[in-house]
Amino acid sequence: MTDFAAEAARLDAADPLAKWRAEFLLDEGVAYLDGNSLGALPRATPDRLAEVVRQEWGKGLIGSWNSANWIGLPQKLGTMIAPLIGAGGHEVIAADSVSVNLFKLIAAALAMRPGRKVVLSEPGNFPTDLYMVQGLEAQGLAERRLAGRDAVADALDDDVALLMLTHVHYKTGAMFDMAALTAKAHEAGALVLWDLSHSAGAVPVDLNGAGADFAVGCGYKYLNGGPGAPAFAYVAERLHDALQQPLSGWMGHARPFAFDDDYASAPGVDRLLCGTPPILGLSALQIGVNLMAKIGMEALVAKSRQLSEFTRAAMAGHVPELVCISPEDPAMRGSQLSYRHDHAYELCQALIARRVIGDFRAPDVLRLGFAPAYVSFADCWRAVSELRDILDSGEWQKPEYAERATVT
Amino acid sequence: MTDFAAEAARLDAADPLAKWRAEFLLDEGVAYLDGNSLGALPRATPDRLAEVVRQEWGKGLIGSWNSANWIGLPQKLGTMIAPLIGAGGHEVIAADSVSVNLFKLIAAALAMRPGRKVVLSEPGNFPTDLYMVQGLEAQGLAERRLAGRDAVADALDDDVALLMLTHVHYKTGAMFDMAALTAKAHEAGALVLWDLSHSAGAVPVDLNGAGADFAVGCGYKYLNGGPGAPAFAYVAERLHDALQQPLSGWMGHARPFAFDDDYASAPGVDRLLCGTPPILGLSALQIGVNLMAKIGMEALVAKSRQLSEFTRAAMAGHVPELVCISPEDPAMRGSQLSYRHDHAYELCQALIARRVIGDFRAPDVLRLGFAPAYVSFADCWRAVSELRDILDSGEWQKPEYAERATVT
Repeated sequence: MTDFAAEAARLDAADPLAKWRAEFLLDEGVAYLDGNSLGALPRATPDRLAEVVRQEWGKGLIGSWNSANWIGLPQKLGTMIAPLIGAGGHEVIAADSVSVNLFKLIAAALAMRPGRKVVLSEPGNFPTDLYMVQGLEAQGLAERRLAGRDAVADALDDDVALLMLTHVHYKTGAMFDMAALTAKAHEAGALVLWDLSHSAGAVPVDLNGAGADFAVGCGYKYLNGGPGAPAFAYVAERLHDALQQPLSGWMGHARPFAFDDDYASAPGVDRLLCGTPPILGLSALQIGVNLMAKIGMEALVAKSRQLSEFTRAAMAGHVPELVCISPEDPAMRGSQLSYRHDHAYELCQALIARRVIGDFRAPDVLRLGFAPAYVSFADCWRAVSELRDILDSGEWQKPEYAERATVT
Repeated sequence: MTDFAAEAARLDAADPLAKWRAEFLLDEGVAYLDGNSLGALPRATPDRLAEVVRQEWGKGLIGSWNSANWIGLPQKLGTMIAPLIGAGGHEVIAADSVSVNLFKLIAAALAMRPGRKVVLSEPGNFPTDLYMVQGLEAQGLAERRLAGRDAVADALDDDVALLMLTHVHYKTGAMFDMAALTAKAHEAGALVLWDLSHSAGAVPVDLNGAGADFAVGCGYKYLNGGPGAPAFAYVAERLHDALQQPLSGWMGHARPFAFDDDYASAPGVDRLLCGTPPILGLSALQIGVNLMAKIGMEALVAKSRQLSEFTRAAMAGHVPELVCISPEDPAMRGSQLSYRHDHAYELCQALIARRVIGDFRAPDVLRLGFAPAYVSFADCWRAVSELRDILDSGEWQKPEYAERATVT
């Protein structure tokens, strides 16, 4: 069998992204394979936040809305995120949460397809995506339809207003063919909304190339914006004029500081804004996005695939009792590998105790995520070898590893 | 005439809250009379944020959702804000923005009053409140009705599902009688939603005592949570079982980490949660709210009234050409005074150039806000005397003071 320890050392030595790990404040001794859930802390973030707080807020006070251009941050972040996902800078804006942005865009799509009420998705999609459709369903405005991922295309009919899918599946890592499904939905007269939460910053995304209509995505995973970071939303330029969304708050008004009684929407994606932008969160997100832009998507994607391929081979060789449920072809999956095991929860806790941090997804999945900006091949090998040891030693059977935490 | 300079010195010397100014990082030389728009920076906030970023995020990583109880912050903030507004701890939660929370609660009220679609408010209410009703109107779910503040009670009829008012008017500072209007609305079979954005932390609010149904409020004004801080929402306990809102995201689910396909709402106000909580913003807000709780609402309210009464008298004596549009009785207004002048914008800019920071509201209002935790009587006197000097010298006519900024 391959000597994976030696192979990891060889790959790390040849890794052109190895130098970027120093741009993150990650403790030595931690193998962090959960950047797909919460990205690591960029080295530049604490100082930038201190500056925003002490200088911009503390000294600049209210004037910083103009002088520090706080008011322009949602658009600025949009233009920075856009090239990472194949969008034009004026097609993306940072605002609210993924969930809230889903609501805006699902409602916007329904308004563009009068006479159609169905929002089509897959069972097992990330829960909040499914729940936001149910919110509109309870309002009487939408009808949720779920079809298994292989049956999605066939479930497109004249009732479907919107096909809403998560590009990379949070649990399995399986990735949809964005261009093919977008084309199928368009043939059926439906619009398409892609959730890029597990894609942006880790896998190739070309929204414009795929002809996508809408997208949302997460700021706190591969974009390293910090816990609960603001999310982003994308609307293709050709839909801007027709774009209407129900969360019509003052920041989406054409002239917010005219304080008119009547809403008049701002141009383009600006009308997706609702309340006052969260400046601390946006400022932290800016540091994370800037890092991804500097490293470059092509290099990130290449290393992501190398990391996961290395890990897949090492797991198959050394921990065959864990069943990989992610697609074999790295071009068909996101930057993660998911393994099924009856005691996945306990295994995950035992790994964390050894400072190898992956995560668990109910009911029985262990996820290992590969944030290519800071994960090394040595980290991956350590996960595999520690897992082997945890299984061999029976350490995972310690009773404390079975106690379920609030957040898993 | 009273010697206001001497009076200010006397009042400051006797002010039991004077010591609290040191708990804010406010530059010497700045008279900050805009805490009603963006509260000042608490001294403890930078260190706490640095700890959240470096320790909880950087070292604790994903585990901090449990170990630092990030997941419980929305509820924790709710229980801290509750006593400031006369609510039970389990009736308040911190989440999203004021605008987004308005949408949730307006929709919730409409769902509780089937057959009624009218949301009654006043023209000139804060714009986002009016716009969020229009969002639901565009969905076909609401009908907006506006009646002047003296005619509001008479406009309550069998069609009104919800009376939605801002307790303290952002422009004039006029304060509604919450208990009286709530009772009138209830007599008409309507529910009531109070926007406490310009109230919480500055004026007496007794939601339970008034029998209020719903409320929202802002974290970045008198609660000093920082620019774009998370907002809060209140729902009276008696309505918890019937509470339904359309932004049914995963954090409002009874078991978010079961990752079920179907939404099942969490108990009580927890179901107002939607996306992942913004931890940086909530952590900063916690410092600000904690300060207000330590000072105590009674002392804050007493000083707020003293500050505004002092300023009203000094303005009347020294700057009579500015017309006060706030109510004369301090018990009938919030913690601000508003003055009309044809050149209010230029006057405001000239004041800011002298480091006396108030703000302007279109088309012709100069606002002076009195955040009682850190504003001194000397600050107030300085605003009055500098304004007199700016008018006498004609300094306000400098062309640069007429240039409109993006944010006013």
